[in-house]
Amino acid sequence: MAEKNSSRLSRRSLLSMIGTVAGSTAMYNAMTEMGFADASHFTGPPQLGKAPPGSSVLILGAGIAGMVAALEMRDAGYKVTVLEYNNRAGGRNWSLYGGDTYTELGGETQHVQFDPGQYINPGPWRLPHHHKAMMHYTSRLGVTLEPFTQVNYNAYVHNAAANGGKPKRYREVQADFHGHVAELLAKSTKQNALDQAVTKQDQEILMTALKAWGALDKNYEYKMGRESGARRGYIKDSGGGLDSLPIYSEPDSMSNVLNSYMWRAIGWGQDWDYQTSIFQPKGGMGQVGKAFGIELGNLIKYNAKVVDIHQDEKGVTATYVDTQKGGAPQKVSADWCVCTIPASILSQIPMNVGGKMKTAINQLSYGAGLKIGLQFKRRFWEQDDGIYGGLSYTSQPNAMLGYPMWDYFSKGKGVILGAYVMGSGAFVAAAKPASERIKDALEYGEMLHPGNYKKEFECGVAVAWHRVPWTLGCSGQWTEAARDQHYNNMCALDGRIVLAGEHASRLSAWQEGSATSALDAIKRVHQRAMSA
Amino acid sequence: MAEKNSSRLSRRSLLSMIGTVAGSTAMYNAMTEMGFADASHFTGPPQLGKAPPGSSVLILGAGIAGMVAALEMRDAGYKVTVLEYNNRAGGRNWSLYGGDTYTELGGETQHVQFDPGQYINPGPWRLPHHHKAMMHYTSRLGVTLEPFTQVNYNAYVHNAAANGGKPKRYREVQADFHGHVAELLAKSTKQNALDQAVTKQDQEILMTALKAWGALDKNYEYKMGRESGARRGYIKDSGGGLDSLPIYSEPDSMSNVLNSYMWRAIGWGQDWDYQTSIFQPKGGMGQVGKAFGIELGNLIKYNAKVVDIHQDEKGVTATYVDTQKGGAPQKVSADWCVCTIPASILSQIPMNVGGKMKTAINQLSYGAGLKIGLQFKRRFWEQDDGIYGGLSYTSQPNAMLGYPMWDYFSKGKGVILGAYVMGSGAFVAAAKPASERIKDALEYGEMLHPGNYKKEFECGVAVAWHRVPWTLGCSGQWTEAARDQHYNNMCALDGRIVLAGEHASRLSAWQEGSATSALDAIKRVHQRAMSA
Repeated sequence: MAEKNSSRLSRRSLLSMIGTVAGSTAMYNAMTEMGFADASHFTGPPQLGKAPPGSSVLILGAGIAGMVAALEMRDAGYKVTVLEYNNRAGGRNWSLYGGDTYTELGGETQHVQFDPGQYINPGPWRLPHHHKAMMHYTSRLGVTLEPFTQVNYNAYVHNAAANGGKPKRYREVQADFHGHVAELLAKSTKQNALDQAVTKQDQEILMTALKAWGALDKNYEYKMGRESGARRGYIKDSGGGLDSLPIYSEPDSMSNVLNSYMWRAIGWGQDWDYQTSIFQPKGGMGQVGKAFGIELGNLIKYNAKVVDIHQDEKGVTATYVDTQKGGAPQKVSADWCVCTIPASILSQIPMNVGGKMKTAINQLSYGAGLKIGLQFKRRFWEQDDGIYGGLSYTSQPNAMLGYPMWDYFSKGKGVILGAYVMGSGAFVAAAKPASERIKDALEYGEMLHPGNYKKEFECGVAVAWHRVPWTLGCSGQWTEAARDQHYNNMCALDGRIVLAGEHASRLSAWQEGSATSALDAIKRVHQRAMSA
Repeated sequence: MAEKNSSRLSRRSLLSMIGTVAGSTAMYNAMTEMGFADASHFTGPPQLGKAPPGSSVLILGAGIAGMVAALEMRDAGYKVTVLEYNNRAGGRNWSLYGGDTYTELGGETQHVQFDPGQYINPGPWRLPHHHKAMMHYTSRLGVTLEPFTQVNYNAYVHNAAANGGKPKRYREVQADFHGHVAELLAKSTKQNALDQAVTKQDQEILMTALKAWGALDKNYEYKMGRESGARRGYIKDSGGGLDSLPIYSEPDSMSNVLNSYMWRAIGWGQDWDYQTSIFQPKGGMGQVGKAFGIELGNLIKYNAKVVDIHQDEKGVTATYVDTQKGGAPQKVSADWCVCTIPASILSQIPMNVGGKMKTAINQLSYGAGLKIGLQFKRRFWEQDDGIYGGLSYTSQPNAMLGYPMWDYFSKGKGVILGAYVMGSGAFVAAAKPASERIKDALEYGEMLHPGNYKKEFECGVAVAWHRVPWTLGCSGQWTEAARDQHYNNMCALDGRIVLAGEHASRLSAWQEGSATSALDAIKRVHQRAMSA
């Protein structure tokens, strides 16, 4: 093991040298040669070694960051105490099921009335394959993952101001955009407009490629017919027997495609974060938090609202109140503290850290977010629209619909994510009571699924993240300028306190950011503990 | 019900009229208005009504076409007899499991040694969401479907003659192709080369769209950096804590992208037939055939090799031999015959139909195909390569790898589709014994998964379709010219005999073609029976 680590280290040093001397391309080539490409920041759980005898750590928050830290430090031999505000483990890793209640800031309580087996994830809902820390912990904790569908070609793209307010299918939007782009570039190539950029020989291959990729006809035009039909779909499919001819569909014009702005919808699935394969835990994202909670058992103290964090040269003491039982504030102390409380909350808790960390915490604003889960009597999106999972996009304030990606073809009910809104739209919605938010979402959804959406609706729940009492927002909003100035101060160990969470990562709003920030933080705490 | 049908009829007549008078665009618009777009040839099981009392049908072949016909005609009240050559239901709907044996033309028998739970589909393996007839029957028969992954951005694209023989990731190929196409078109736009085709106003939107879709930087260039990294992936991902900066990867040049021909791989997933959502039956495609077989019970006579088909004015008689028990040829008669025997086999069976149908049968050639299933000791493609399902493409004779799309993250074994070859390559491979085909596939696969593929291999099975005794090929190969001349003659009722199967459809090689051809055929048989 030691030998393996040292050989890894020397390879890494070599790479770093190549990078400095020869630039990133050379480094990339070298990394590929050496099998390093596509490296995650997570290359396995940290090999902390053994904790100094009798050493202890106080972890604030039983979200993903806090529980990753707790698990690894417990395994290394630290005495671990976790304080958690909620009565459950997970934090923003959270699924709402029938029977759950949720009280937001302002006092409105929602009683979730979903049927058994139905749920909504108010927080994160995707686990990309390359989020290797999350993959490691779901595997370690025995959480079953199933495929998540980001791109569904048969889902809708809707702009109330285009196409007569009617939705189009994702496949129509993408096929028409690709087709027209290919046709225009083929035209430019034929008119010698690319002669300076592309050799004549490459232009020939380019023409062949544009024809194949863009579904152009033999004249390099994107038109109604066999080629475009095979991409955008048919009015009537090919079939069997005597009545078997297809009826082609008519592509939209490039001008309509551009002015509809529906092309905005077709980039997402190509993004690293949303590329296949993506997964979700069977039964809801909250299964991950639940599994962590079971693993950590009574190391977690629930219903503990931290009201003060104080460090001195000997250790860290947190003062908390029991939100259920009340009573006098209690104290818990340890040698070290990994604080994963969101900066939005932490900025309100007295804590004696240096000015740099204080400023980093105070400057970070938190984004508003809104997610609404709607239960319907039957799966009309599958049965009537042929949509099995994936997302529909709309220009309306609800922004998108997410169809359930489990129990496909079920004859029973289903829960649609009826709104997933970030930013100002989420503030507007949150100003209304939950029932009004749901009513609005039904109006918006009706535009995509007319005749069914309002008719089949049963019950819903709406979570506006800046009214969630324990986060006051969905995630830290870093600008590039703020990163330059404050990011390292947010992450650096201050005495005996280190911060972790998605706000202390460059993977904002992702659980992988929480996990990798925790792993990076505890490595540094452990190093300090070993040298103390 | 009657009222609904008549209103549907009148809407259809109206549409047809609009199509004739105003052309297909108007018809498309009208169809969209009326909720008809994306219509399948399957709009529900056929409402045959009641069969004439005492009428009977003889169905030849218990593949998908034969069993769809049998099911519907049985339900309508026909006395149904199905003759099947094999000792199982399904035909090309077929999965091979451990313990199965398969003897090909030439006499070589393979004993499948897969572990329990492992399988390969030598025939069809995908069920697109829009194959509505298949969706109907899997639902009716209680076959559980699970998602099939066509496009996996993290899978490989490999051309032995490009990139130093090393595979690239699908995401790298697609991002670089899209990026360079966007950059070139942005350049053309800026140089006013599009002025005739696109208005100035639309050009502005086009530039914005190209930047977003193509991951161009602020100068509309496709370069190493933040934008391209978010598509093609990173040398090192962003992470959390202090050690969190990403390392960007270097895009390939347009010339390399074009000359690698790897762009050929990125069109498929956009095709209607391969677009999300696609499904597969849990446990193998053969579960569909099995479920049909159970449903039809003793209506199917197995091990029955049809050697003669004869019709007269009263009915149809098939003569068959029992391939297991031997003995004298036996005869079975019925009023009507739905013959689903592949044309490749049927052309060798005496059958008194007219010259037109005979010619249609005789002229149809069948494609060669090769599929190889390989069981490995561990799922190195998941554990080492981060590939969970989907396809890798290669220029080598094995053409592609298909990773198992079930039991993701299993610590156990897995079966890869190690070759899926159509055409001449399949002939070349089939000339060798199965063990040699498998050995070759291991060499090819080693190029994509060096160090693992040969090392982790356990056992395999190779099915070369033109050596499958009961089809002599994988599917009918129609040219456009042949369709014009012979297709209607293939499908038309000849006396009391009608043909069905993928060869009597415009969805060649798809089970949906088999199912819809059967439905179309039995409607016409039933009409004839009712007027007889």
